[in-house]
Amino acid sequence: MFSITVRDHLMVAHSFRGEVFGPAQRLHGATFLVDATFRRPELDDDNIVVDIGLATTELGKVLGEFNYRNLDDVDRFDGINTSTEFLAKVVADRLVEAIHAGTLGEGARGIREVAVTLHESHIAWASYERSV
Amino acid sequence: MFSITVRDHLMVAHSFRGEVFGPAQRLHGATFLVDATFRRPELDDDNIVVDIGLATTELGKVLGEFNYRNLDDVDRFDGINTSTEFLAKVVADRLVEAIHAGTLGEGARGIREVAVTLHESHIAWASYERSV
Amino acid sequence: MFSITVRDHLMVAHSFRGEVFGPAQRLHGATFLVDATFRRPELDDDNIVVDIGLATTELGKVLGEFNYRNLDDVDRFDGINTSTEFLAKVVADRLVEAIHAGTLGEGARGIREVAVTLHESHIAWASYERSV
Amino acid sequence: MFSITVRDHLMVAHSFRGEVFGPAQRLHGATFLVDATFRRPELDDDNIVVDIGLATTELGKVLGEFNYRNLDDVDRFDGINTSTEFLAKVVADRLVEAIHAGTLGEGARGIREVAVTLHESHIAWASYERSV
Amino acid sequence: MFSITVRDHLMVAHSFRGEVFGPAQRLHGATFLVDATFRRPELDDDNIVVDIGLATTELGKVLGEFNYRNLDDVDRFDGINTSTEFLAKVVADRLVEAIHAGTLGEGARGIREVAVTLHESHIAWASYERSV
Amino acid sequence: MFSITVRDHLMVAHSFRGEVFGPAQRLHGATFLVDATFRRPELDDDNIVVDIGLATTELGKVLGEFNYRNLDDVDRFDGINTSTEFLAKVVADRLVEAIHAGTLGEGARGIREVAVTLHESHIAWASYERSV
Repeated sequence: MFSITVRDHLMVAHSFRGEVFGPAQRLHGATFLVDATFRRPELDDDNIVVDIGLATTELGKVLGEFNYRNLDDVDRFDGINTSTEFLAKVVADRLVEAIHAGTLGEGARGIREVAVTLHESHIAWASYERSV
Repeated sequence: MFSITVRDHLMVAHSFRGEVFGPAQRLHGATFLVDATFRRPELDDDNIVVDIGLATTELGKVLGEFNYRNLDDVDRFDGINTSTEFLAKVVADRLVEAIHAGTLGEGARGIREVAVTLHESHIAWASYERSV
Repeated sequence: MFSITVRDHLMVAHSFRGEVFGPAQRLHGATFLVDATFRRPELDDDNIVVDIGLATTELGKVLGEFNYRNLDDVDRFDGINTSTEFLAKVVADRLVEAIHAGTLGEGARGIREVAVTLHESHIAWASYERSV
Repeated sequence: MFSITVRDHLMVAHSFRGEVFGPAQRLHGATFLVDATFRRPELDDDNIVVDIGLATTELGKVLGEFNYRNLDDVDRFDGINTSTEFLAKVVADRLVEAIHAGTLGEGARGIREVAVTLHESHIAWASYERSV
Repeated sequence: MFSITVRDHLMVAHSFRGEVFGPAQRLHGATFLVDATFRRPELDDDNIVVDIGLATTELGKVLGEFNYRNLDDVDRFDGINTSTEFLAKVVADRLVEAIHAGTLGEGARGIREVAVTLHESHIAWASYERSV
Repeated sequence: MFSITVRDHLMVAHSFRGEVFGPAQRLHGATFLVDATFRRPELDDDNIVVDIGLATTELGKVLGEFNYRNLDDVDRFDGINTSTEFLAKVVADRLVEAIHAGTLGEGARGIREVAVTLHESHIAWASYERSV
C-alpha cells in the first residue's frame, strides 16, 4: 500500500458541553496541525498517489471554511461538540467528496482510503480514517 | 476508525543481556517519549474517543511505576530484556486493564484497540498494538 | 552562559484589531507551545540553573491564569492586541517576578536573563527576552 | 503486533516528467528523512523485533547507493519518475531482500511486514508498506 | 528584545567544489527548511514585530527565485560553493533589502536584526544573523 | 555571524544528590539529544563554518566516551551532579579543545564560539555557550 500525506493548519475558537471537558467548557481555542493522508494499492500513470499540489490546495480549501472562526457560530456544528476526533472526520469526509468530484484529478479516483490527523498540541492528537 | 493519542515520557536506567546488544549490555539509560493511542469505530455520547484528561492521568500513573528507576531492579522484569518494544507492550497491557477496570470512564469501554509507541531517540522508536 | 528551557502549552481564544490582521480580526483561537528559558553565567550549589520541577510548576501557574479562556474577556488585556510576541512578554515578565519573589528557589536569584518563545503553529513563533 | 523504526536520511537531485509536476519538472533536489519500520507478531529470543544496530546499518547501505547522486543518471531509474512514494517502495523492497538474505540476522526472519516513509519536507511525506 | 520567526522550505540541486566535501562534490540536492527571524526592541503600533502575512509572503518570494532549481546553473552563484551557511546569508540579505524597500510594511522599519536558519536534515542546520 | 549545528545523541544512567532532585536522586537514565553549534563572523576558504563531516565525527567521539555508561561510575564526575546543563559544558569544553588541537581542520581555527544544547525530553533542555 502506498500513501502520501500533506500538512496544513487551522486556528479556531470553540467550547464544549459536558462535565467531562472541565475548563474546556469555556470558550477557548486551538491551533490544529492537520495531516491528510491518501492511500492506494498502486500508483497512477505519473507514478504518484495523487498530485501533491492539488492535495495541498484542496486541504487548504477545506480548512479555509473554518479557519479563523469560532466553531460555536458555525451552523452545521450547532449542538455538536467539535472535538478534535470529530473535526478529523469532518475534514476526511470532505476530502473523500473531493476525490469523488474529481477535484483531486482523474488519477486520484484510485485512492482507496483517507486518514486525517489533527494535532491539538505537542502532547495530544486525534485521527479518523475511512475508505473512499 | 477514530483514535486519540496522548504523549508523556519516562526516564529509566537498564542494561541488556545478549551479544546482539553490544555496548548496551552495560548499565545505561533512556528517555522514552511514550505515545498512547486509543482506537474505536464510533465516538461516545460526548463525541470523543476517551476523556483526554483521564487518558493522560492514567498514562502518567502507568509510567509513574517505572519513572526514575533502574529497571534491572524491578522484580517483574527479573531475567527479562526490557527492550523498547517489550516496554511498549507493558504499557499497552496496563492501559487495556485500565479500560476493563473502568478507570478511563464508562464511555471508554467502546475502545477496541490500544497502541503504544516508545521513542528512545530522534532516530529510533518501537510500538506494540493489540485489541482490547 | 548556561540555560535551561521547559515547555508547556496554552489553548486560548482571541481576536485582533487592525486591518493588518486580515481574517484574524475575527474571534479565533490558538494552541501556543510555550518555551521558557532561564540563563545565568554560573550554576548554583546543586550544579543546576534552576530546579526544573519548580520552573515547570511556575510556568504552569502563569499559563493557568489564561488557559482555556477568551483573552478578549481578560480585563488586563482590554484594548490590547494579544499578539504572540506580546503574550511572550507577559509570560516572561511574570517569570521574572517569580524569580524576584523567590518562588523559583533561593538559588534562582542567580538567573540573569529570561526568554520566552510561543509557537503558534509549525510555521510561526515569537519570542521575548529580557534581563532579570 | 510489535514494530521498531529507525531513521536515516538521503540527499539527492532529480527531475520529473509530466505536466502535473509543474516546476518540479526542472532538475532540483531533496533531503528525504527515511523511516524504516519492521513489524512482527512475536518478539525473537532476545526480546526484540530486530537488532537495531543491524537495521540501521542495512538502511544506511540501501540509502548509500543513492546518496549524493542525481537520480536522473541512475540506470535502473531510466524513464521512471522517482517520486517520493516510488522511492519508498525501492527502499522497502531492498529491506525485504535483506531479511530474506539473512543480513538482518537469523531472528529477523520472523518479520512479517516492512513499511518505509520518506519525508520530503516538514509538510509532505510518502509511505509504502508490504508483507515480507 | 522581541522576535517573530516564519518557516518555509526550498528544494534545490547543487554540487560543491573542494575535497572537504567528499561525495557532496557530486550533483545532489537538498530540502532546506528555512526559518526567518525578525528582531526589534519595541513592538509597532499594532503590537507586533512585523505583519506575519507579509513576512511569509516575502520569504516565499525570496525562496521562489531558487526553488526547484539547480543552483549550479544560477549565474550569481557561478564559482561559489552554495553551502547551507552561505545560502542562509543570501536569504537574510534579501530580507534586509525588503525591510529597507518597505515591502514588509512601514512598521517593519523598526526591525533591528534578521536571522535565517536553513535545516538541511534532521541532524544538521546552519544560520546567519546580521543587523538591518 | 554564521553558525552550523550538528545533532547526535547519548544514552546514559546517573543519579543526583540533593533534595531538590526528588525522585531523580534514584539511579535512572536519559537519552540526551545533543546539538553542537559552531559560530564565526566569516566563512573559511571553502565557504563554510567547519567541515560538517569532521564536526559530526568529533561530536561522536566526545559522546562516545560517555555513551551507554553509568555516569556515577565515571571517575572525573566523582561527587559531581551530572545535570543536563553541566553535561552541556563538558561537551562544549571538549569541542573547544578539539578546535585548538586542529582536529576540526585548520579552517576551524576561525570559530569564535561554541554552544551545546542537550535535550533530556520533549519538554526540557539545557545549553552552555562559551567563546573559543
